[in-house]
Amino acid sequence: MAPVYKLTYFPVKALAEPTRFLLKYGGLEFEDERFEREQWPQIKPTMPFGQVPVLSAKGKQYHQSIAMARFFAKQVKLVGSDEWEDLEIDSMVDTVNDLRQKIAVYSYEQDAAIKESRKGPLMNETLPYYLERLDKIAKENNGHLACGKLTWADFYFVALLDYLNYMTESDLTAKYENLEAVKNNVLSIPAIKEWVETRPKSDL
Amino acid sequence: MAPVYKLTYFPVKALAEPTRFLLKYGGLEFEDERFEREQWPQIKPTMPFGQVPVLSAKGKQYHQSIAMARFFAKQVKLVGSDEWEDLEIDSMVDTVNDLRQKIAVYSYEQDAAIKESRKGPLMNETLPYYLERLDKIAKENNGHLACGKLTWADFYFVALLDYLNYMTESDLTAKYENLEAVKNNVLSIPAIKEWVETRPKSDL
Repeated sequence: MAPVYKLTYFPVKALAEPTRFLLKYGGLEFEDERFEREQWPQIKPTMPFGQVPVLSAKGKQYHQSIAMARFFAKQVKLVGSDEWEDLEIDSMVDTVNDLRQKIAVYSYEQDAAIKESRKGPLMNETLPYYLERLDKIAKENNGHLACGKLTWADFYFVALLDYLNYMTESDLTAKYENLEAVKNNVLSIPAIKEWVETRPKSDL
Repeated sequence: MAPVYKLTYFPVKALAEPTRFLLKYGGLEFEDERFEREQWPQIKPTMPFGQVPVLSAKGKQYHQSIAMARFFAKQVKLVGSDEWEDLEIDSMVDTVNDLRQKIAVYSYEQDAAIKESRKGPLMNETLPYYLERLDKIAKENNGHLACGKLTWADFYFVALLDYLNYMTESDLTAKYENLEAVKNNVLSIPAIKEWVETRPKSDL
């Protein structure tokens, strides 16, 4: 029988990886459809808002990577125990996404001079600003980003980390011991460990 | 007794207005704290990631405007009836937020030449691309953005609309009859109608 879920994306980790982590964590079967960059011009018009990842399920297409991660987090029970916890988790996920977008504005800039002008402020101001605050939160939450326990906020951050490191050409968490703890808490989960060891190799 | 909720923001609609709509819809009491722009340098360091709106409740500060809107949407029962509906709602909310960000990249650009260079692509490509697709979705959902019924995705879009119109100096929904229907479906709700008539006046 065909899997219930198909996840369509470029052959990279990036925005699809949080959802892949959650699917693997829950042992949920899915088709991990990876297309080559040359195929994108043909595929793009078939996607709801011209973007991927897209989740296909029940004959429909669902886009927006955070929405689909939240959907699977509910299924694998990595959401909060009440609406207050979910508020805390959701706010951390959107904060990590803010950080991701601030990095992307630098990393994806095509004009070399503009890109260079953005490097200093990103590296010397934005990254320390976010990472220091996230590290403090991780300390207060005992190696987690929210609610003092393992939630999909941890998965979201750790699954995106390779992509964030790739874009910044750095190891963002190296100097932050509590963020290292968040990372280790996720990567030491057997199902995640196995996935990371066996997943298709990609730079980002 | 002091209200349970305090919402702190600039004296504008913008990112706080979806949450204000939801609070008003549910008849939930809250302190609508609006500070002047001159106060921002003093206030900014007291906010979790240097951003507002911030929700104060239970002695804690919660940031991220979409996270707080979702929190109140649960309370006032404008979320989906199951996780599939919530996936659809969440994906529409994040899509409207994508549109908001694409507009902001143009609107907040300080360099006049760069801003002008972004105007054509935004007005002639990005806006029609998003609005045509959102209008089609609104048609399929009978004057709503998700699940064929009133949800907080409608509230999120309509409450942001003044801000989006301000940034683009246009009436974004004028040509799109199904998005006009979404707007009317929200603005005709008595509690929302009353709030819109009595709320503090602001450009954005």
